[in-house]
Amino acid sequence: MIYELYYWPTIQGRGEFVRLALEEAAAAYRDVARESGRGAGVASLVHFLQGRATERPPFAPPFLRAGRLIVGQTANILQFLGPRHALAPKSQSARLWLHELQLTIADLVAEVHDTHHPVAVSLYYEDQKKEARRKAADFLKNRMTKYLGYFEKILASKQRGNRYLLGAKLTYADLSLFQIVAGLSYAFPNTMASAARKHRHLFALHARIQERPRIAAYLESARRIPFNEDGIFRHYPELESPSRVK
Amino acid sequence: MIYELYYWPTIQGRGEFVRLALEEAAAAYRDVARESGRGAGVASLVHFLQGRATERPPFAPPFLRAGRLIVGQTANILQFLGPRHALAPKSQSARLWLHELQLTIADLVAEVHDTHHPVAVSLYYEDQKKEARRKAADFLKNRMTKYLGYFEKILASKQRGNRYLLGAKLTYADLSLFQIVAGLSYAFPNTMASAARKHRHLFALHARIQERPRIAAYLESARRIPFNEDGIFRHYPELESPSRVK
Repeated sequence: MIYELYYWPTIQGRGEFVRLALEEAAAAYRDVARESGRGAGVASLVHFLQGRATERPPFAPPFLRAGRLIVGQTANILQFLGPRHALAPKSQSARLWLHELQLTIADLVAEVHDTHHPVAVSLYYEDQKKEARRKAADFLKNRMTKYLGYFEKILASKQRGNRYLLGAKLTYADLSLFQIVAGLSYAFPNTMASAARKHRHLFALHARIQERPRIAAYLESARRIPFNEDGIFRHYPELESPSRVK
Repeated sequence: MIYELYYWPTIQGRGEFVRLALEEAAAAYRDVARESGRGAGVASLVHFLQGRATERPPFAPPFLRAGRLIVGQTANILQFLGPRHALAPKSQSARLWLHELQLTIADLVAEVHDTHHPVAVSLYYEDQKKEARRKAADFLKNRMTKYLGYFEKILASKQRGNRYLLGAKLTYADLSLFQIVAGLSYAFPNTMASAARKHRHLFALHARIQERPRIAAYLESARRIPFNEDGIFRHYPELESPSRVK
């Protein structure tokens, strides 16, 4: 079976958390909205969203098709893929904990998005720039610190050899945390440069995952869409240094 | 075993989605932060958040203690409780769909919260009132409509007799959707009065759940904290009718 991933074709966005899991698993998948031809492209994605193709229509991308099953919501997709591809632990209680971590990552992602879109997703950044500066300032000062500190503490509490969030073995949440560090470093390079000193375990996790053979190959491939200013992690220098840029 | 729910003691907030499930299940539970005495009150909650009581510290309330297990993140708690209390279907694929719906409800809850706190949770509403008006206007015009329309469509697509989100049987997501309609009706009474006409199935679901014996008894009890302006659903008339109120 070949998975079908449905996500906006020009950004990493929330789809990237799923892509990273599929790539690490070396799972066969199509990134449908990025393909051309019949039954592909953005039209195929919209078709599902309009609820004409399934009794269980997703609210928004990303969603994954696995045979007859359609699974929506990023964290839910990862929860589905995890046990199928050795990216989740065996015990039920550990799986709940893993999912809890993933949902906290999802909350962080939503807050990152709101640094450039605090008023409305339907408006351009330029139309909410003033509000974005206030939001981003609070995010960088209070929220980002809180989230990164939380994950750092968990990683730091592990005994030697247990280098991942759940211990010795890599899970889908580690891959997502890699993407968080990568994305925040793109969006807020100065803040993250200072954060690296205080969050050694977190940045070490990022470096380690970046070097995993399948992830390294993926990051160098055309399948990895570069970060850009249409995605969740956007580099607007004025949001990081409001005093320096007009 | 008696469950222990940990959540802020003076608001419904996200804890309410868990309370409704526990109440419908007639499960024995303590609402720990609302109790007084040793090992209770807000101090007990903070103790867990500081990570001193467990290797798996929750990022934020609510979290639930079930014996030695501690489960955080609202949707994750419900996913844990569902199968234990006949509030979730048996099949794995239906459970994924149920969880997908719950995560979409969680996204909606976050957007409702941001109508009065678009800039920072650490600031008072009064310090972000201007931004809140813009945010709420967009929410009422675009986002709320989209979410409610989504759930209405799912409910309306069911065949006669299948009156819940997943069909004939009540699940935890139905209880959460009840809370969404109740909360939005408190926060935005005029908008919801017009929405009722377009979302008959959704409002019928709300009415039906309100009359379930255990839920009705709960709503009349002191265990149900009234809606108030410290919670997620806040009634600020100026956010609903910016032209009429200064």
